[in-house]
Amino acid sequence: METGSYSVAFPRHWWYPVARSSELGRRPVAVTLMDTPLAVFRGAGGVPAVLVDRCAHRNYPLSAGRVAGEGVLECGYHGWTYDGGGHCVRVPGLPDGCAQPADTRHVPSHAALEQDGIVWAWGEPDAEPTRRPFALPVVGGPGAGEVILRGDLECTLHASLENELDVPHTAFLHRGIFRGGTPHSITAVRRPVDDGVEVQYLGEPVGMGPIRLREGAGRTFDHWDRFVLPSIAQIEYAVEGWFRIVNTIVHLPLSPFRTRAWFVVRFQSRLPAALVRPVVLQRGKRILRQDARALARQAERIRSFGGERYASTELDLFGNAIWHLLRHAERAERADGSDGAAAATVSERTVVFEA
Amino acid sequence: METGSYSVAFPRHWWYPVARSSELGRRPVAVTLMDTPLAVFRGAGGVPAVLVDRCAHRNYPLSAGRVAGEGVLECGYHGWTYDGGGHCVRVPGLPDGCAQPADTRHVPSHAALEQDGIVWAWGEPDAEPTRRPFALPVVGGPGAGEVILRGDLECTLHASLENELDVPHTAFLHRGIFRGGTPHSITAVRRPVDDGVEVQYLGEPVGMGPIRLREGAGRTFDHWDRFVLPSIAQIEYAVEGWFRIVNTIVHLPLSPFRTRAWFVVRFQSRLPAALVRPVVLQRGKRILRQDARALARQAERIRSFGGERYASTELDLFGNAIWHLLRHAERAERADGSDGAAAATVSERTVVFEA
Amino acid sequence: METGSYSVAFPRHWWYPVARSSELGRRPVAVTLMDTPLAVFRGAGGVPAVLVDRCAHRNYPLSAGRVAGEGVLECGYHGWTYDGGGHCVRVPGLPDGCAQPADTRHVPSHAALEQDGIVWAWGEPDAEPTRRPFALPVVGGPGAGEVILRGDLECTLHASLENELDVPHTAFLHRGIFRGGTPHSITAVRRPVDDGVEVQYLGEPVGMGPIRLREGAGRTFDHWDRFVLPSIAQIEYAVEGWFRIVNTIVHLPLSPFRTRAWFVVRFQSRLPAALVRPVVLQRGKRILRQDARALARQAERIRSFGGERYASTELDLFGNAIWHLLRHAERAERADGSDGAAAATVSERTVVFEA
Repeated sequence: METGSYSVAFPRHWWYPVARSSELGRRPVAVTLMDTPLAVFRGAGGVPAVLVDRCAHRNYPLSAGRVAGEGVLECGYHGWTYDGGGHCVRVPGLPDGCAQPADTRHVPSHAALEQDGIVWAWGEPDAEPTRRPFALPVVGGPGAGEVILRGDLECTLHASLENELDVPHTAFLHRGIFRGGTPHSITAVRRPVDDGVEVQYLGEPVGMGPIRLREGAGRTFDHWDRFVLPSIAQIEYAVEGWFRIVNTIVHLPLSPFRTRAWFVVRFQSRLPAALVRPVVLQRGKRILRQDARALARQAERIRSFGGERYASTELDLFGNAIWHLLRHAERAERADGSDGAAAATVSERTVVFEA
Repeated sequence: METGSYSVAFPRHWWYPVARSSELGRRPVAVTLMDTPLAVFRGAGGVPAVLVDRCAHRNYPLSAGRVAGEGVLECGYHGWTYDGGGHCVRVPGLPDGCAQPADTRHVPSHAALEQDGIVWAWGEPDAEPTRRPFALPVVGGPGAGEVILRGDLECTLHASLENELDVPHTAFLHRGIFRGGTPHSITAVRRPVDDGVEVQYLGEPVGMGPIRLREGAGRTFDHWDRFVLPSIAQIEYAVEGWFRIVNTIVHLPLSPFRTRAWFVVRFQSRLPAALVRPVVLQRGKRILRQDARALARQAERIRSFGGERYASTELDLFGNAIWHLLRHAERAERADGSDGAAAATVSERTVVFEA
Repeated sequence: METGSYSVAFPRHWWYPVARSSELGRRPVAVTLMDTPLAVFRGAGGVPAVLVDRCAHRNYPLSAGRVAGEGVLECGYHGWTYDGGGHCVRVPGLPDGCAQPADTRHVPSHAALEQDGIVWAWGEPDAEPTRRPFALPVVGGPGAGEVILRGDLECTLHASLENELDVPHTAFLHRGIFRGGTPHSITAVRRPVDDGVEVQYLGEPVGMGPIRLREGAGRTFDHWDRFVLPSIAQIEYAVEGWFRIVNTIVHLPLSPFRTRAWFVVRFQSRLPAALVRPVVLQRGKRILRQDARALARQAERIRSFGGERYASTELDLFGNAIWHLLRHAERAERADGSDGAAAATVSERTVVFEA
């Protein structure tokens, strides 16, 4: 049995999505961030709060408790109660409640905020954020709509990102949904962007991508794929004056080998959103099922060999670039404590391929 | 991921419950004692016997075999047969049966005896017991009765003992069954007892504990909780001349993180036992379900962090005391081979709390 | 918890069965050989091919792909395509297909051939075989027939071989199917054979073995059991001029603790095969179920103690002999790279026992 390495990196000085805003109610939401259990709830004033999900008293999961009226989280075992900063504000039975400060009764917290309907948590506990979360694109105008899907993928963050941003696999794994027909020569141009990398596809005929329309004959897509640190993938298809669809996939690395993805699909076209939405939903679910199964199979195989051993060609535009950025961001943090990601860039490259 | 330690100790020079007497029939009973598989059966004269559950021949579990007529245990694979002391008395096919002594055909045995309807095994194999098992209390008189429940708890022996003897959790985990109403000031007095520790509660009004009766207004319970080495918890409630209920919980540590508990509830009151029994049974099952779920959650969380990290207050009267006694008993055995537990005592302490 | 060793050996310079010929169609067959995943399919000209089941590109299992028309295997993720030798012959999208040779796009292959309706793979990848697979016996003539059963056993190869070739267990584990009645004195003669060991049983009365016939009174079976390297067990019963039945069991060690067995039962008697087949099938399935359950129990017990600790008597004619041959074959390969197995022989031995 050979052993190797896994493409697992965890840069901590970044924001990660931990829940949708709509999930937060009387019950806290339990997630993990790279195996650290977290309890997400609304603290004072309804502001989201993220605590390490372990009561300081007897290590019971706080997420099995309840949000008390005043925006505090009460443990379900002995009732120890915490504010959004992780400070214990009550120990039931103690004559003084919990008056004196006690460091041992403190639970680590992660900075948290709400943006674009998503609750984001800072990757490092008990630390001040140094940037803003990734902003989702606005796709407006008549016919604009949104579909959101969630998938838990049994694979590394890196494998899911590469899968989502990979064009060549669509003709095989999604045979019958994507591509097919006469092959065309397509030019791909890869460029660095802020905290990430982008690939623009030129010459891709309308009809071979995810949207097929009879009227498309002879026209080509505007098509960009993007990766942005630490865990954002984005796929944008448009035909000027006709439609635009942007699928932004925000990832939470639940553990080194388990990744939660929210697919936020925003679109605008000349058709009513109510007509487009069910089509996007149905296609999206089918593609997600196929990808989830393939990623689980790939991960299982990699683990059975004790690590990855990849061979790449010039068609693999994202895999190494994503890894380079993730790894650089992680190393820069460790080296000098700074965020340091700005220094890493991906080289430009132009590739012509058949699809 | 931090790592820490677990409150796991296994003093071996003590008796552990391994089965109820009524379970022993034609088929041996299979259990584990701290991960060592044991086969329990009735040997010669019906006397209980406990063998390490692995045939000396091809390591087949003896508990998958059968008790032959004469109080010997026959392996189900090749028929090797053992007496209650673990000596092989027959190898089918061998011309001389199993005449010559052969150390390699011996299976280790644990001293065993029956007391109070329970089969107890000595914690050390092939060793002579140096004491008696814990004796269950006699609760007699008109209206006396008994209910026995069994639960397999996914947690350490220590966590289940602390849970059972902890008063403050009842208002939260068992909300609606125990406590509630106007808080009272209660005084708890902790004292050492032989091989254990006891807490007496003073000023606990009748009606806030597990038994609520209208006539109780103004009276207080006699209430003691006890831990006795190595694995006994006991909860005793009484009102003089009215009723008495003693819940003795005897534990078998199946593995470091799995604990079997028999709840032997003996009671006596002015009501017929046939009326009280179903109430105790129904309440007991519900409380056990809630505790079992909480203990599993706590254990899962502790393991996900690689160990315990507890904070305590003066309300945690039993946790550290139990750990101190268990750990001391284990260490004394290792140090000098003696039982040595008598030397460990828990300090006296008086605490006033609100409940 | 004690720890010990396991009887696990893997001599690689031998043939192992990986599938039945009839299993190979449009979909490749996935198996493991001692934990190495393999994809089995028909390559050019229909000749069986065995590749390490991991695409060189992104480590997707090739067995999740499909056999393309020309006898090549296409990966289901990105369509990389391999011939029977593991050479990548196509990368979809690449302008030159896959023209230039690239060592990194090669997948290791195992020599493979078809014989007796079974696909055999050489144990060492990218190596030339130095011998032929074990040849199944021909059992012909009027009334000849065949039954094939497959079982996946949760145990080592060694434990399953010993189980199949062990006579004494049949009276206990298969009580009611085999043996019973008045015990007889039977003589067993063990002798070395090429690459293996054989035991001949003398004096076994017809009626106590798997075939009971009234007319058998006073006659004895011709009965041989055999082990042949690396993974063949054979049980042969005959009565001259009456019937002959040979059960050849070919094993694939899926992993150190999981073993696939094909039971190829060939028989000839004075009855029509169509009458004998259902009896053999029904008996065979029942015996297999009992053995599979016992082997899983034995393996579970061995693992719970961290290794085997066996005691043997002179009745255990095969256990140590099989282990000696397997271990010797494995060590000889490591020592000098040669096959070296010819040097190992098992001593002759004659044993008289009661059954």
